[in-house]
Order: sequence, then C-alpha cells, then structure tokens
Amino acid sequence: MQNERKTILTGDRATGQLHLGHYVGSLKQRIDLQHQHDQTILVADMQGLTDNGHTPDKVASNILNVVADYLAVGIDPAKTTICLQSHIPALAELTMFYSNLVTISRLERNPTVKNEIQSKQFGRSIPAGFLTYPISQAADITAFHATQVPVGDDQLPMLEQTNEIVRKINNLANESVLVECTPMLSHTPRLPSTDGKNKMSKSLGNAINLGATEKDIRAAVHSMYTDPNHLRIEDPGQVEGNIVFTYLDAFHPDTAHVEALKAHYQEGGLGDGKVKAELEACLQALLAPIRAQRNELLADRAYLCDVLRAGTERANRQATQVADAVKRVFGLNLF
Amino acid sequence: MQNERKTILTGDRATGQLHLGHYVGSLKQRIDLQHQHDQTILVADMQGLTDNGHTPDKVASNILNVVADYLAVGIDPAKTTICLQSHIPALAELTMFYSNLVTISRLERNPTVKNEIQSKQFGRSIPAGFLTYPISQAADITAFHATQVPVGDDQLPMLEQTNEIVRKINNLANESVLVECTPMLSHTPRLPSTDGKNKMSKSLGNAINLGATEKDIRAAVHSMYTDPNHLRIEDPGQVEGNIVFTYLDAFHPDTAHVEALKAHYQEGGLGDGKVKAELEACLQALLAPIRAQRNELLADRAYLCDVLRAGTERANRQATQVADAVKRVFGLNLF
Repeated sequence: MQNERKTILTGDRATGQLHLGHYVGSLKQRIDLQHQHDQTILVADMQGLTDNGHTPDKVASNILNVVADYLAVGIDPAKTTICLQSHIPALAELTMFYSNLVTISRLERNPTVKNEIQSKQFGRSIPAGFLTYPISQAADITAFHATQVPVGDDQLPMLEQTNEIVRKINNLANESVLVECTPMLSHTPRLPSTDGKNKMSKSLGNAINLGATEKDIRAAVHSMYTDPNHLRIEDPGQVEGNIVFTYLDAFHPDTAHVEALKAHYQEGGLGDGKVKAELEACLQALLAPIRAQRNELLADRAYLCDVLRAGTERANRQATQVADAVKRVFGLNLF
Repeated sequence: MQNERKTILTGDRATGQLHLGHYVGSLKQRIDLQHQHDQTILVADMQGLTDNGHTPDKVASNILNVVADYLAVGIDPAKTTICLQSHIPALAELTMFYSNLVTISRLERNPTVKNEIQSKQFGRSIPAGFLTYPISQAADITAFHATQVPVGDDQLPMLEQTNEIVRKINNLANESVLVECTPMLSHTPRLPSTDGKNKMSKSLGNAINLGATEKDIRAAVHSMYTDPNHLRIEDPGQVEGNIVFTYLDAFHPDTAHVEALKAHYQEGGLGDGKVKAELEACLQALLAPIRAQRNELLADRAYLCDVLRAGTERANRQATQVADAVKRVFGLNLF
C-alpha cells in the first residue's frame, strides 16, 4: 500500500524566484515523488494575479524563472507534468461551476484567507479573485483527480474547502465524479528567513534564491541572525533560534559534524564567523550546480517554453475531461 | 450614422420558457436588429446556475426551449449568433482575469445585485457566483466587443461595471484592447404580469409563455386583473392599471380600435368579458403560428442542438481571440 501509485497536485504562485525555503519545503520532496507517483506541478500565474492584478508583470516575468528553478533542481519534465494555470481554460470553467456551490460567508470564514486578508490589509477592498481563490484551488486539485496534495498545516482549510465541493458535486451527480484529496503534510519544519523575523520575501531581502550568486550567498550568510547574546567567542552560545544552525541542520550533509559544532558553540569557544563559514561553504556547494544549470536554462527561453507548453497540453487533456464530467453533472452536455 | 453597423450582445438566463414579456421587451427588437447589425444572443446557462447551483435541472431543461423560442419568433440563426455560455471557455477565463480588478465592496455596492440579494433573501449565504455575476456579464459583453447592449434601466449598473473593467484593462495595456459598451434602452414599458402585482414568474403562473396552449391563453386572459371597481357593465371603468388594456396596447395591431374600446370602457357600457374576448382573439392569433413552429422545432432536438453548436463555435472563435488579447495584457502570451 505504501508504494501505491498516487496522483499529486502541487504548484507555486509565480510571483518571485524560488528560494531555499522552497527547496527544503517542497522541491526536494517533489524530486523524490516524481519517481513513484503521477505528479502535476502547476505554475500558478492566475493565483499570483489575485493580489497582483494591477502589477501583472510581477507574475509574467517570473513564470520561466520558476520553470528554470524546477528543472535546475532536478524535476524531470518527462516524469512530472509542469503546466501553466492560465493556459488551462478548464480550470476557469470548473471555478465558475464551483462558485455556485460556495457561499461568500463560507469563503470569509476560511482561516487561511482571513489571515492573508489581514496581513495584506485589504479590508473590504479585497479583489473578488482573491476572496474566491480557494474555489480556484479546488478547481486545480480536482481537475487532475489529485488524491494527495502536499501542504503546510496552514493550508489544511483549503483542502477542506475542496473536499466540501467534491462532496457537493458527487451528491448532485449521485455518483463519484470527483475524488476527495488528502493532505500530504510535510515533516520538514518551515525554513526561517535569514533575519529570523519575517516570512521570506524578495522585497525584505531575507531569502536565498536558488539562483543566488556566490556574492549573494556570502552576504546572506554573513547577515544571518545568530545568538544576539553571544558577544565574545569564549562565551557559551545558544543554538535554538540561531538561524545559522537551523540552516546547517537543513542543509549540511554531515549530521554528526553539525552536532559537534553545536556542542562546541554551546560550550563556548566557537565564534559566529567560523560557523557561518561552514554554512556558507555548504550552501555554495549546494547552489553552484543549480545556479549553473539555471543560467543555462534561462539562456534558452524557447526550450523552457517548449517544456511548459508540452506539460500544459497534457494537463489540458486531463482537465478538459474533468470539466466535461462536471458539465454532465449540471446537465449541460448538449454537445 | 443611424445605419452604422453595430455589435450587439444580448441574451437570456435559461431558467424558464420565454413569455410575452420577453416578446415585447426584447425578442421583437432582436428580430429587427438582426438585419442591420452583428447580433449575438447568449443562452446564459452559467448565469442561470448562479442561483440554481443546487437545482441545475431548472437550467439544463430550458436551454433548448429557449432556442426553440428564439427560432419560433423569427430570430434567424444565419443572421444572429445564438450560443451557449457554458460552452465558451474563454468567458470563464475572462471572468477570472477581471475578478482580480474588481473588489468585493464594489460588487456589494452594485444596486441591481443588492436588490436581487434582498429579494432572494440570500443574506450572507449568497453563492460566490451570484455576487460576482456582474464580472461574468462583463466577460460576456467584452468577449464579443459588443458596443450596444439592450437593457432595462435596472441593468444600467451592470454596464457601468463592465465599462470600469474595460477602462482598467485598457489602462493596463496602454492601448484600446476592449471596447466600452453603450446601453440600448428600450422604449417599450415593461409588460406587467397577468395578475398586475408581481414580476412575471413561472411559479406564480402569471405569465403567458410563447408556447402557451389555446387553453392556457384563454385561462390567462380570463383571470387577468382589470378595474376592481368596474362592477356593472354600465359603470364607467378605468383603463389605467387595467392589465387587459395594457396588453391590448402592447399586442393589438389596430391602435385606433383599441382607443375606441378604451373610450367606450371609460364611458361605461363595455363589459370586461367583451374586452377580454378582443384580447384573447388577438393573442391567439399572435401565438398560434409561434406555438406551431415551436412544437415542430422541439420535436427535432438534434436540429436545435446543431443550431446552438454552430453558433457556439462561431462565438468561441471570437471570444478566444479576446481572451488571448487579455492574456497578452497580463503578459501571459508565452505560447
């Protein structure tokens, strides 16, 4: 049962370059999953537009970056369907159908959206597309009959919403037209930002992108938040909440070595500079081949477009079948 | 300038059979317009579902009825594009794009939707698709570059909403990608229901459908609201608010004859029965050929499907071009 082939739907909003948080949080997992399961990765440009409708270039300019990031880390387009949300009309069609089965108050109760609305300070000026994006996510998930959706626990309300819609459609149909999905909760804790305070964000400059240059990496590690009370090398330092150690835990291949460093640091006598040098070396080693691959890919945009187009065509065939099935549920299969 | 060829978008929610209110309010106008203009009529099944998501059969079962109604009254599918909303994916795509440019508070301020929400007693349980249907209407109108939209004045806020979206898209594009539309206000007053009290509705039985049988027509005219104070034939009767005279005004071909009847009725000496007999004769004469044509059409559902499919294909070509143009505005024309 463990090795049963499953259908996985995942994706990223195309609003920025992918960074180390994505790498440990989802990309590494996807590289493994593609060998045993049917995996679709959606470049979610439409979802990116729900809060960037007036600044669409932020989305458009990042689509091929994201595809390059995927390929550079080892996602194989022969094994994983990489597709572009805006070019799969069936997703928009399914969203329209589902919108008739979900109330505004249900959307307003969604804790994930509630938090996002607050943090973005939308108030009542929230774009309609943003309030309703959980419906669009339900379309994405159901369009591929996804059974597994990798999520953080903050995204669980989204899957509940999706499964509510699935049950409503199946009730209307009196048969199982859509499948319910199960969260695939990550065991990896969320990677903190380099400043240890905020969510990683391009504008705050507190994330290390997969395409970061040597210099970027050096500067990011140098500026990393450590133990603010560890003033002299000989003082004992704290490891908990010390971002440099958190990153070493996440990226250093030699766990025993990291444990030894931690012990030394806690005891006193190990300076931040040395620990940072260890982390930098390990991140430079990790990112150098990814960056090289990424740059090579981005130099051939036609190839990236071809990969995305081929995946999108495959995705279109699947999603159109599901949209047709939902049209039948509503009795609209006239021709 | 008067005879300039214009592009007209109009349509009906497919939630019931069309009736005499539609006939005088829109169908007659469409029969004339199709000779001089490019006219598209949308069978709005998706809009019908926005408040019938859980009772979709109400919509599905009426699609071909509505097409039969169109053809029976003389709308010519060679001159008018008759198309099915749910089978034009570009309309759903445009709705998704526009949703990012319209706020929830803007939708809640729409007076037409506000009234409908109140009259349907939705409260906060309003389906998302219903609150956002003005965005979907904007998609319908802009997808065909419609310059003229026949509406009642209660629908003017819908066109304002559409033109706001048009301006936002054109601003983003820095060129004129979409065209603003102009209302084509009807000079015909709205035909009252036979009970003179409520809006015509199938469930209230206060409308005369285009497919009404002879018996239906007789019963409807017989039950029509007249002057409640006109108790004896010799009494003077009132013509204002007397539904029988309103219908005679709307349907009797001989205006002078109707004026003479009115004068006689106001003076006294003309019974309701006689006036109703005049109206019945005129409605029977109007509806007999329409009914015959309608029944013949409905006996050949494959033909109706063919007509609708051909129109929908034509509409798809136009709408897809507009959706592609809007994708370009958002920078998403990768392939």
